[in-house]
Amino acid sequence: MSSTLAELTELLPVVQPREPVSVADRIAASAATTGGSLSTWDFHQWFAERRRTGGFRIERIPFSKLRGWSFEPGTGNLVHSSGRFFSVEGLHVTTDDGPHKEWFQPIIKQPEVGILGILVKEFDGVLHFLMQAKMEPGNRNLLQLSPTVQATRSNYTKVHQGTDVKYIEYFTGTGRGRILADVLQSEHGSWFYHKSNRNMIVEVDGDVPLDDDFCWLTLGQISELLHQDNLVNMDSRTVLACLPAYGAGAVRGDDFSQSLARSRDPEAGALLTDVDLLSWFTSERSRYDVRAERIPLDQVPGWTRDEARIGKDDGRWFNVVAVEVQAGNREVTSWTQPLIEPCSRGIAAFLTRSFDGVLHVLANAKVEGGFLDTVELAPTVQCSPDNFEGLQVRPPFLDLVLEAAPERVRYDAIHSEEGGRFLYAENRYLVIEADEQDAPIEPPTGYQWVTVSQLTALIKHGHYVNVQARTLLACLNAMGHLTDD
Amino acid sequence: MSSTLAELTELLPVVQPREPVSVADRIAASAATTGGSLSTWDFHQWFAERRRTGGFRIERIPFSKLRGWSFEPGTGNLVHSSGRFFSVEGLHVTTDDGPHKEWFQPIIKQPEVGILGILVKEFDGVLHFLMQAKMEPGNRNLLQLSPTVQATRSNYTKVHQGTDVKYIEYFTGTGRGRILADVLQSEHGSWFYHKSNRNMIVEVDGDVPLDDDFCWLTLGQISELLHQDNLVNMDSRTVLACLPAYGAGAVRGDDFSQSLARSRDPEAGALLTDVDLLSWFTSERSRYDVRAERIPLDQVPGWTRDEARIGKDDGRWFNVVAVEVQAGNREVTSWTQPLIEPCSRGIAAFLTRSFDGVLHVLANAKVEGGFLDTVELAPTVQCSPDNFEGLQVRPPFLDLVLEAAPERVRYDAIHSEEGGRFLYAENRYLVIEADEQDAPIEPPTGYQWVTVSQLTALIKHGHYVNVQARTLLACLNAMGHLTDD
Repeated sequence: MSSTLAELTELLPVVQPREPVSVADRIAASAATTGGSLSTWDFHQWFAERRRTGGFRIERIPFSKLRGWSFEPGTGNLVHSSGRFFSVEGLHVTTDDGPHKEWFQPIIKQPEVGILGILVKEFDGVLHFLMQAKMEPGNRNLLQLSPTVQATRSNYTKVHQGTDVKYIEYFTGTGRGRILADVLQSEHGSWFYHKSNRNMIVEVDGDVPLDDDFCWLTLGQISELLHQDNLVNMDSRTVLACLPAYGAGAVRGDDFSQSLARSRDPEAGALLTDVDLLSWFTSERSRYDVRAERIPLDQVPGWTRDEARIGKDDGRWFNVVAVEVQAGNREVTSWTQPLIEPCSRGIAAFLTRSFDGVLHVLANAKVEGGFLDTVELAPTVQCSPDNFEGLQVRPPFLDLVLEAAPERVRYDAIHSEEGGRFLYAENRYLVIEADEQDAPIEPPTGYQWVTVSQLTALIKHGHYVNVQARTLLACLNAMGHLTDD
Repeated sequence: MSSTLAELTELLPVVQPREPVSVADRIAASAATTGGSLSTWDFHQWFAERRRTGGFRIERIPFSKLRGWSFEPGTGNLVHSSGRFFSVEGLHVTTDDGPHKEWFQPIIKQPEVGILGILVKEFDGVLHFLMQAKMEPGNRNLLQLSPTVQATRSNYTKVHQGTDVKYIEYFTGTGRGRILADVLQSEHGSWFYHKSNRNMIVEVDGDVPLDDDFCWLTLGQISELLHQDNLVNMDSRTVLACLPAYGAGAVRGDDFSQSLARSRDPEAGALLTDVDLLSWFTSERSRYDVRAERIPLDQVPGWTRDEARIGKDDGRWFNVVAVEVQAGNREVTSWTQPLIEPCSRGIAAFLTRSFDGVLHVLANAKVEGGFLDTVELAPTVQCSPDNFEGLQVRPPFLDLVLEAAPERVRYDAIHSEEGGRFLYAENRYLVIEADEQDAPIEPPTGYQWVTVSQLTALIKHGHYVNVQARTLLACLNAMGHLTDD
């Protein structure tokens, strides 16, 4: 075989352009198409039907009713008897900078790398994305629109003895299609210790059998759905954020839309050159000396466990709870598991400004205790306001976001975070126009103005852009093209 | 002030091209210049003079003669009384793939991010690099050519109460010059736990006072010196590897040189597209489930401590030892410290092949226990051959490298690893031409063909390319231009 290949290398060119086929135009065309192979009306019918036939039910239970889960003697860690899935342990974080120099908290440890993958295929010359109606116990409405594949390694190696993960072969096999994106991205650093998932987008040409829980949508349709509350799940949003840059898009529309379109254009300029942006990020990452040490869960001071809840004594931040899940179309039909339940709804907002007609968003280099490496770029504001009630120190720009005039709010929707690990973890995602008074061109330490295209370039690599900022990037991409209709 | 800026933004363009000024041509010109402001002859005179006036002396000492260092009760970790600098602890590594599934070892923990920085400035229109004649206790010849600045945070925040770090203000201040590179890169994952340093290249225009221990060299001169054994130190090599891509360079010369020149050209093709290369890397990083847990040094099985050495019972791998250092021009004039001493010289070699006239090197996605994230791209062969003597399993391609015919060896020099932490840690760095028989176009699992330009693009970001591969990249860049003379 190697000699055959050797002969081939002498006859045929084997080297190819490093960016051979521009998929940008085809993605842009899909983004501009809101009438796909399934009409949006039909989609909603189908989705309602999936919800009806699912037969899902969630019930809070005391920890003692968890099956297969227990508090490990000696550490108090909440673990599964198989040693797989995930565990809830303790974390002790110290840092030499920032408002909080030391804290303790429970944290989810799940060292496995999962796959979040969307399969893409052309129908009538337009790219469609294979999306799934998937139940997750932590979603308030249970069923949301997820990627084609959303699987932990335990899932697809069958540790849970459930059914196969559908379509997984398009992502784990070799030569199964063209890779449009494949990158390890972090998950919530406040709740997960060093967790990352593989975000994949794969294009195929051949026939793909369509299962009941799945449908093909254009990017334009998904963009419409991203304007609805609690419909497009977190896993979909992070994968969509990894789409390669697809150019300026709409150039009609108001100043904001035009500025946003230019912001998506890799040819457009920016306040910072790319090397200066990377340098700023490097200096932010070097600025902090963050030590995050795992500790036994029962040695986390200030947190108390009762029969159904591990919570902070002051009632802020989040609780660890347990649920029993009944599901019809999930891999196994009934199970129990722990979940993290935030005490209140969060906010994730980008302030934006247009400089020389190019939209910039104000990113914050944010420390989260569970990050693999100190900081990642986060939204301008990312917090649960209730956690700061009555406190003297409030996060920068929070009040500006809370009090923004309606005409400045360019995007506003509530989305759920990972429903397989978090219970009713909702964030209000906002894009808000600001001015020099609100947010100066020379931002405070820890903040920097970046274009949408610069964020997109960073997302080709892991650990630059956190999961909330990735959601906002997906939303920003969903906005530009809507104005084109 | 912000209102002034606000007014400015209305008058002047603030957005700039993301890659505004091409420095590539100027770097290429410096690489083609071997007669700098200091002739190479004068350089060697100056360097010999520095060596004479240094008055350095190194002596091995028993651990009991270390000042400020001791074995911590309870853990046996070797720590400094200040709690700063570094410590020697234990590491327990398990992985689910590869030839070694579990091992224990001592490891250096040094959480601080240091700065390795080279200052660059034009003289007579040619870029010169400010290099330092620096003593490091672990270098066999003590004095080597280091970056302008090579400082741990302890250094420049004066924990050791020595003198100031010269030129540090060009790297830590703001607005001090133009950033050409600024990225956190890993160090040796076999000896360091999660260590990374900030690799910086900064260009200035104004006058720079020249200290006795420093000299300005063109890139062409440094390239010549990179062909000598034990002269350009590791810190210099890793910083040089972070230089932005500077084009094809020499197009004369033999087939190999032309192929290497094309390999450096970002416009040239490659066997894998960039997205397929990133996808392959992501799959390699996901393929391993590596758990590296720090443990107390006195709980590392198979390793024994006597009065002057912590070593492996079978005499392989490395020892932890202690030295006393006397130095004239160092920040403090006498000190003691632990060092890691490898038991034998290592090899770091890239196999190369030319596909369609573009040189590719065979990179290996290698697990090292101390890496922040599972794998990084390493040379084709990276090991100490003595460690495998008498063993059945030998590293892939090792014998090929050891037995390569002289005419296939395109680069061959011995370089030292970090002399501040490692004693006599030398690697023989090799670039060796291979053919389809030796190294097929479809490489074995864990290996991939990449161009020099692809490596250079990855090095803009941290944790893709390990320190040995970065040395080889600096050597590959040093080769291409030499043939042009």
